[in-house]
Amino acid sequence: MALDRREFIRNSTIAGLGLAFLPKIGFANSVKQTLNIGFIGMGLRGEEHLKNALFRSDIQVIAICDIDPNRLKVGREMIEEKGKSPALEFGKDDYDYRNLLKLKEIDAVIIATPWLWHTPMSVDAMKAGKYTGVEVSAAMTMEECWDLVNTHEATGSHLMILENVNYRRDVMAVLNMVRQNVFGELLHMRCGYQHDLREVKFNDGIHAYGHGVEFGEKGFSEARWRTQHSLKRNADIYPTHGLGPVATYVNVNRGNRFISLTSHATKSRGLHKHIVDVGGEDHPNAGLKWKLGDIVTTTIDTANGETIIVTHDTNSPRPYSLGFRVQGTNGIWEVDGNRIYIEGEANKPHRWDDATAWLEKYDHPLWKRFASEAEGAGHGGMDFFVMNAFVESAKRQIAPPLDAYDAAAWSSITPLSEASIAGGGQVQYFPDFTRGKWIKRKPYNWMKDIY
Amino acid sequence: MALDRREFIRNSTIAGLGLAFLPKIGFANSVKQTLNIGFIGMGLRGEEHLKNALFRSDIQVIAICDIDPNRLKVGREMIEEKGKSPALEFGKDDYDYRNLLKLKEIDAVIIATPWLWHTPMSVDAMKAGKYTGVEVSAAMTMEECWDLVNTHEATGSHLMILENVNYRRDVMAVLNMVRQNVFGELLHMRCGYQHDLREVKFNDGIHAYGHGVEFGEKGFSEARWRTQHSLKRNADIYPTHGLGPVATYVNVNRGNRFISLTSHATKSRGLHKHIVDVGGEDHPNAGLKWKLGDIVTTTIDTANGETIIVTHDTNSPRPYSLGFRVQGTNGIWEVDGNRIYIEGEANKPHRWDDATAWLEKYDHPLWKRFASEAEGAGHGGMDFFVMNAFVESAKRQIAPPLDAYDAAAWSSITPLSEASIAGGGQVQYFPDFTRGKWIKRKPYNWMKDIY
Repeated sequence: MALDRREFIRNSTIAGLGLAFLPKIGFANSVKQTLNIGFIGMGLRGEEHLKNALFRSDIQVIAICDIDPNRLKVGREMIEEKGKSPALEFGKDDYDYRNLLKLKEIDAVIIATPWLWHTPMSVDAMKAGKYTGVEVSAAMTMEECWDLVNTHEATGSHLMILENVNYRRDVMAVLNMVRQNVFGELLHMRCGYQHDLREVKFNDGIHAYGHGVEFGEKGFSEARWRTQHSLKRNADIYPTHGLGPVATYVNVNRGNRFISLTSHATKSRGLHKHIVDVGGEDHPNAGLKWKLGDIVTTTIDTANGETIIVTHDTNSPRPYSLGFRVQGTNGIWEVDGNRIYIEGEANKPHRWDDATAWLEKYDHPLWKRFASEAEGAGHGGMDFFVMNAFVESAKRQIAPPLDAYDAAAWSSITPLSEASIAGGGQVQYFPDFTRGKWIKRKPYNWMKDIY
Repeated sequence: MALDRREFIRNSTIAGLGLAFLPKIGFANSVKQTLNIGFIGMGLRGEEHLKNALFRSDIQVIAICDIDPNRLKVGREMIEEKGKSPALEFGKDDYDYRNLLKLKEIDAVIIATPWLWHTPMSVDAMKAGKYTGVEVSAAMTMEECWDLVNTHEATGSHLMILENVNYRRDVMAVLNMVRQNVFGELLHMRCGYQHDLREVKFNDGIHAYGHGVEFGEKGFSEARWRTQHSLKRNADIYPTHGLGPVATYVNVNRGNRFISLTSHATKSRGLHKHIVDVGGEDHPNAGLKWKLGDIVTTTIDTANGETIIVTHDTNSPRPYSLGFRVQGTNGIWEVDGNRIYIEGEANKPHRWDDATAWLEKYDHPLWKRFASEAEGAGHGGMDFFVMNAFVESAKRQIAPPLDAYDAAAWSSITPLSEASIAGGGQVQYFPDFTRGKWIKRKPYNWMKDIY
């Protein structure tokens, strides 16, 4: 507990920013036994979070919110099935979530809504004094990135970006290896969101995946809101699944920061081709001009001299991969091919080793402890851990592992890459969301087995 | 032969540029039976070329040149062993190669010398009317890139950049697949020179590889001249092994061209660390500041809307890979992991297939025909093909597959990436070395089994 209190003091915005008032943040020795949560957004992602919450004995679901009554019903039935107390329900209009936020008994909220709602809802939640978890990506514009940071600082409410890939088993094992200096000094990383989303961006308005070429009002689930971003924006519109883990490896915002980037987009072909292939040349959507380049490449320079390549690749036929590569002065790991080379440790010079033995040897303490609990959770277990980190941080009212500065810095890739592409690859400079404090903020202590 | 004549007319600088005089270029129906060659540079690379030349019955080695008598001796003995006529020898000083170029009986020269000599020697060779083959990379500065183009145009002499990787079996099979539209419309490519050269850049002055941390005057072979580039330049100093094949896939300078790039370099750590690890902290070279970032990432935009990532990664422990990736609207191939995914053809949706069957199915006609001849040649056979293309083009006095415009465009990555890095990633624009003619130059006919 002493450690937690020190962490709180170090990480808290109060100590760092000298605010004139003290938010209602308890100290670590007053760890809550039960966290009262409200869920905003009961789509497929919100449903997954609710499912994981209902597995836990330290969460009480106070309220759920969705503007779609069918989705509210899904949430209600899940709660009933678990034999838990019924939750209050919100969603009579777009802003009914604000009534949920007024409930004093709610400690924390989880926001899993369409992207354009992430920042407005997070801002409102922090203003309401709620410990706020927001799905990825957290912000769509640079102004929204600042909204997250400024609201966090003004209110003292904590924000966690719920990046589940940071908790993937191999990603955490590699984090363990990074912290134990297996790769030496880090030099270069690669990552990205390489996922053929053509059957996610389009459907028939009934099935989520695999039917039809409708989107927007005629679409269902993600096709209803996500696809419009591909129509209108040429940018890395979904950067955090790749960037989150890598940013953690090199302690971005904690002794390091993103300095600048350049971005390049290919021509846009995949979505039009998909519409024509599936819906025919005469389909009304076949006439649309899609702004999003099929593959977007962003390269980031960090203050500490590393470079990071981030890829966005969602419109083309390809198997899924987040394309991780971590390279340092002692060696290199690549997720593709599950391979590793560590100087002096490799079985043969200049030859890859299978990474499995390394990943097992450096299995993260959290995974060692909670692997069986994680089994039922989504996305190979990582959803358990991101929820666990959120809940345990919120119960202690301490800063989360992935905070408002991370949410802002990672999400800012979207507006910055958009500007760079529009300028033919011109350099864009990251704002320093920490207002200079990255030079003294200490790396987050990832190497523990609690959360 | 009629085809060859048309090719000549199409490709020749005379037809294209309206020069006022006719260089001594024969028509295709006067194919030479024997090509008289001079070799400039008898280092390890020149030795390899000479070895491959001596296998051929259509080459006569007229002269060899090197300033190192030991290397001249190597060449002399190789010629003797093959029972061929002795070659004239040059190398009494740095400029004795010009006396070799004066020999009227020499049709063509192959230049395999330290990088800083590539352009000056190529320019002199073209001015002397020789069909010129130059090793990679062809030029070190933007002015040198222009020197190659301008001299070619002024003299009518042909220049071929001897990029052997363009002739690697998998690279040519993928070229075949590209031409047969297996990938659909190309969108995005990756490539690069990822090769741990620490034991090439440094040695003990006696062994080429694996001993000592000396370079420059105290070094041997490549360490004698190559390492200085890492000390003084922060750029992609060796771009063509990766970029050559990819440029060919998307017909750069022939209906397409490189428009712009941005480059980013990591900090420089690997060479200093290697010196300290091997030579100790007190070694005089341990005090040197190395300019070259350990990993240099360049992203190119093309006129046709593709993007290309080029990597230079030579200072760190890692297995060799040129990192090829070719991605289009129908699918994707990656050399790492030897994997492929083609929509509608894949064994399972969203799952990689092993690429072997595809590479075999699309084995290039040249490899089908000459695989057994290529077996004895260096670098897995590809050295045979690059020599074959050079010799067959020179015998016909037609433009080579990889010409002066290619040499200039590919090599210009070095000065452009240097300027971009120095500017913190600022966009750099490629000169149009074809002076606008790329819009009408036809793609080279790669799909033949002659050369």
